[in-house]
Amino acid sequence: MGKTVKSSNNGDGLRQAVNNALERHLFNIPSFKIYGGAAGLYDYGPPGATLLDNVLSLWRQHFVLEENMLQVKCPSVTPEIVLKASGHVDKFTDLKVEDMKTGKSYRADHLLKDYCEDTLKKDRSIISDEKAAELNKICAVLDDLSADQLGAMIKKYEIMAPETKNSLSDPVEFNLMFKTSIGPSSETIGYMRPETAQGIFVNFNYLYYYKRNKLPFAAFQIGQAFRNEISPRQGLLRVREFTLAEIEHFVDPDNKDHPKYATVTNLEILMFSRDEQESQQSAKRLCLGEAVSKGIVNNQTLAYFIGRVYLFLTRLGIDEERLRFRQHLSNEMAHYAEDCWDAEIKCSYGWIECVGIADRSTYDLRVHSDKSGIALVAREKFAEPKEVEKLTITPVKKELGLAFKGNQKMVLEALETMNEHEAMAMKAALESKGEVEFQVSTLQKTVTIKKNMVSITKEIKKEHHRVFTPSVIEPSFGIGRIIYCLFEHCFYTRPSKDGYELLNVFRFPPLVAPIKCSVFPLVQNQKYEEVAEQISTSLTAAGIFNEKDTTGTSIGKKYARADELGVPFAITVDSTSSVTIRERDSKDQIRLNVEEVVAVVTDVSQGQSTWADILKKYPESFRPWRRLKTQIYGRPTLSLAVLTGLLVIEHCYLLQKLKTRN
Amino acid sequence: MGKTVKSSNNGDGLRQAVNNALERHLFNIPSFKIYGGAAGLYDYGPPGATLLDNVLSLWRQHFVLEENMLQVKCPSVTPEIVLKASGHVDKFTDLKVEDMKTGKSYRADHLLKDYCEDTLKKDRSIISDEKAAELNKICAVLDDLSADQLGAMIKKYEIMAPETKNSLSDPVEFNLMFKTSIGPSSETIGYMRPETAQGIFVNFNYLYYYKRNKLPFAAFQIGQAFRNEISPRQGLLRVREFTLAEIEHFVDPDNKDHPKYATVTNLEILMFSRDEQESQQSAKRLCLGEAVSKGIVNNQTLAYFIGRVYLFLTRLGIDEERLRFRQHLSNEMAHYAEDCWDAEIKCSYGWIECVGIADRSTYDLRVHSDKSGIALVAREKFAEPKEVEKLTITPVKKELGLAFKGNQKMVLEALETMNEHEAMAMKAALESKGEVEFQVSTLQKTVTIKKNMVSITKEIKKEHHRVFTPSVIEPSFGIGRIIYCLFEHCFYTRPSKDGYELLNVFRFPPLVAPIKCSVFPLVQNQKYEEVAEQISTSLTAAGIFNEKDTTGTSIGKKYARADELGVPFAITVDSTSSVTIRERDSKDQIRLNVEEVVAVVTDVSQGQSTWADILKKYPESFRPWRRLKTQIYGRPTLSLAVLTGLLVIEHCYLLQKLKTRN
Repeated sequence: MGKTVKSSNNGDGLRQAVNNALERHLFNIPSFKIYGGAAGLYDYGPPGATLLDNVLSLWRQHFVLEENMLQVKCPSVTPEIVLKASGHVDKFTDLKVEDMKTGKSYRADHLLKDYCEDTLKKDRSIISDEKAAELNKICAVLDDLSADQLGAMIKKYEIMAPETKNSLSDPVEFNLMFKTSIGPSSETIGYMRPETAQGIFVNFNYLYYYKRNKLPFAAFQIGQAFRNEISPRQGLLRVREFTLAEIEHFVDPDNKDHPKYATVTNLEILMFSRDEQESQQSAKRLCLGEAVSKGIVNNQTLAYFIGRVYLFLTRLGIDEERLRFRQHLSNEMAHYAEDCWDAEIKCSYGWIECVGIADRSTYDLRVHSDKSGIALVAREKFAEPKEVEKLTITPVKKELGLAFKGNQKMVLEALETMNEHEAMAMKAALESKGEVEFQVSTLQKTVTIKKNMVSITKEIKKEHHRVFTPSVIEPSFGIGRIIYCLFEHCFYTRPSKDGYELLNVFRFPPLVAPIKCSVFPLVQNQKYEEVAEQISTSLTAAGIFNEKDTTGTSIGKKYARADELGVPFAITVDSTSSVTIRERDSKDQIRLNVEEVVAVVTDVSQGQSTWADILKKYPESFRPWRRLKTQIYGRPTLSLAVLTGLLVIEHCYLLQKLKTRN
Repeated sequence: MGKTVKSSNNGDGLRQAVNNALERHLFNIPSFKIYGGAAGLYDYGPPGATLLDNVLSLWRQHFVLEENMLQVKCPSVTPEIVLKASGHVDKFTDLKVEDMKTGKSYRADHLLKDYCEDTLKKDRSIISDEKAAELNKICAVLDDLSADQLGAMIKKYEIMAPETKNSLSDPVEFNLMFKTSIGPSSETIGYMRPETAQGIFVNFNYLYYYKRNKLPFAAFQIGQAFRNEISPRQGLLRVREFTLAEIEHFVDPDNKDHPKYATVTNLEILMFSRDEQESQQSAKRLCLGEAVSKGIVNNQTLAYFIGRVYLFLTRLGIDEERLRFRQHLSNEMAHYAEDCWDAEIKCSYGWIECVGIADRSTYDLRVHSDKSGIALVAREKFAEPKEVEKLTITPVKKELGLAFKGNQKMVLEALETMNEHEAMAMKAALESKGEVEFQVSTLQKTVTIKKNMVSITKEIKKEHHRVFTPSVIEPSFGIGRIIYCLFEHCFYTRPSKDGYELLNVFRFPPLVAPIKCSVFPLVQNQKYEEVAEQISTSLTAAGIFNEKDTTGTSIGKKYARADELGVPFAITVDSTSSVTIRERDSKDQIRLNVEEVVAVVTDVSQGQSTWADILKKYPESFRPWRRLKTQIYGRPTLSLAVLTGLLVIEHCYLLQKLKTRN
């Protein structure tokens, strides 16, 4: 579930229409296409690349400024030791099988899954209920299967290579990192980073110092990550290089409250908890405050980020009805994680994991501390010194020397390294019997310890601070996946004016839209073109990305093209003093003076005003005749007589057209 | 010259001071430092990463919006065939030599250069004039030396490995690209891109279509590039992974005029032409218009971009006096390039190449057309059909068949593929003699062609369009190098108030500064802290990156820290109704109402107003006593009597301090 993308038939038409529109306007282009492309690699073309920038800019505005997060930017090329510590060198693998004749590789779990799904789709009279139950069970545990188990099943079900029907090799682990050498020696192994998070962890001490040694704080990194997929499928959703935006929020493990928690408690969000998944129920709407108080979400900080992610995605244009937060099942979660929720967005491929929000406990800082020998820790200075019970073991060297001569040092060390339980047992024994037998493992024998040889006390001591490894809460955003889902959620079609065509529209929110505004003269005419040029230049100077269209195509076609590019506003120049602005989705038009245009478009593109605000300011634009005249003939000033005449002509033409069709 | 960075002793103190300040505030951090770091890899810490974002944002504003450039975003992982076509697989190499005992690698040219420079620095009585001349000559031709020549010189001068003094291997070519495999097969070779430009070239046809098949247009890409240096030196200037911003401006090779050329013709810029370099002169100030009209700069478009780069760099904060444009010498330039100018910035390492502006002719599109078999070409439709002379060779198959039987096809092909010169010679011979001997290379013999076997005509034909490969003008920005030079150019020191310390300042322009504004309460006091919090929150809401400092340190220390971070404005809260804003470099302060603060700081941070504009608006802040009182005691409202008293006390204290020092 979740991580594996479900196929769904009913979305195929939508997917095709969206992908056609994306391709036509170069939102995405298969990389290196003149050389036949490269599987799993895609370019963003002009509108796509700008949309990506806008999404990241909104992301920064929403997350970074709000929390005063620290940015870091680390290289993608990473020495092996870093990823050895993080576990990626050993565990970031998928199981691959090879076509025994051609050598072509496949993901073993994908083939098994395909087999199960294809078989289950067959006529139920062919497969027995037992077999159906068996295959369903396999799908449920697919992520947990070992190489041996997978291999056995591929043999049992006689699964063959999809294209050639040749037999398959046993599954072997394949590391998903792109491997390279750093510098001229091939022995200095490096990898292209599989995530951006490690660059933050290794810098913890610096960031903590920058934040004046205070917790909690968050750092973030936006950048490319790499994953050398065995055989990428699912287009833009599973690619070999992608943009990640990762936040690492460092927090005291003893106190995961969040100062801004109260701002999210009332958000009602579609949540799919572990219990609901295990008991085959469906996702439920739940207030975040309730989710925390009932213990469904582990802590305030985790809930705070779930709320912030929800607000970000909906602000971006993701449909709230097709967004859920799914908790990881126990077998899905890393052993060290405290709790983990994925923001999943529904698209034609099923529910897709787009953001992971995990409480990773102290794991990451601990593994890097251990491997590097540099303590990545925080210090809490107590306002008042705290009293703590402390065990003190003080061996009496002189007596030990007399008793054990050359073995003195080994006995002494063994005494000093007793744990609390052993020490207290010895103390009790010495007090009651005066001596005790003591196993010294380095001597491989037992010695007799007497009361005068060691003093064991448990004292109340004052401590002024504590040293601890911070926990980390990590929201990790797959920006490319979010953008793909956004494309699907923003896409709709509507009939053309003559009703014979379906026109595509991307309803990107103005903040996200790659082009904020198009500018066209109503007809090809030098005066109008000059005004259009002047408006376009002023918009550019104000930083508003706009596109001037002075081609000879009809105004209707210009609108249709702009709609399919998701341009929210279109300015039509039909006079030298005033122009119209049309809003993409409502097709509402307002008329305003040329001098006012830039300010209005800037406001509404940058989110200071909504279109509704603008409509209130320019109500006269709503005169229905004028609107009709502008929309149909692009001439708001036509006289009523001419208008009626035109309508009659058009009416006759349409009737004629209908007749010839039938 | 240029590409090789010159060391300079007089800059070492500055360099050390700048690097200490950068390190202290985490502008840069050696990557993976807890693991001992990785040569040639650096992180940007919090202020550095934000500054990088700001530089790129200004870059987009300056170049992209202005020219309506098309953005693309391609993967870094690149299949071998693409970089084979571009020439990188074969030619993107440096020569390396190895320590014969330890195996450690060095760049051969660096070792030779070090030897020459070190020797030339020695007492002139030790080395002869001939030897000095010889070594100087080597330095001049260093970039042109072959592996054999370099190897011979290393032997001749007995150059040894720098650390061990072991002898060195012969130089061998080392490819500077990070190599990897794409997908599970090790046969699918890929590289991390050494530049971002190739991703644009391979998409030329798409971009041309997006621009409605019109030239000229420009596309750009910002992203990471990789260069696996043999042994990186020079800190932040020569790294293994870096941010490039590259523009590819596609233009008709027959017309390289630029529509906005007039906007740069009057710019007077320090230019170092090929002629001046070759005749040992120095760089000269020159108007761009003159440089083009005198043929020093090859064409208008190249000059336009030189001008735009100049404006960008100076706007960024690069010192105009330490910026020159150096033309490539003939031996430096690729064989296909028409002309090439580097923007070089002077820093403590010498003159550093930071932007390359090259007219690369049609080379890039041609090599990818050839390798991929997909024509990357533009079409020009003529307004009026043009008359062109066209050669037509029409072999008469029947006659050829009768004469040559089985050899007919070879003869026919040979006739059809004659060039214009050959065809016209044959036509003349046939007309005068009726037949001609003709060499058919595929038959390896000569045949006799008669008048009836072929018709050769040269006709005037009407053509409606022409098809051609566009030229490309490429400005390519090494963003990291620009930023490092910016650090040095923005850095200065000034004495502290008591005169005993030198304080560091980075005078980043407000648009570029990572933190626009700091906010501190004058003293730790709940009321002031609340006002500070409220101002900071409002600034954040307005998108202004700010830092609140409520620590107990003195106001002087807070200013000093903010200055060293390059924060242009500091707000000090010393009342609940009005506050002061201090400008970093002038230390001018103005006082204004709390309600006005956000608007003023936003304006001046985003470049809508300058500080001078603000000073005019708030002149009352200039009352000198008030300023003195605020600067020295942070209390603008002290009475004159108290002020005089304080000055007397301070005077005595300073005298005393001086006495104890002597």
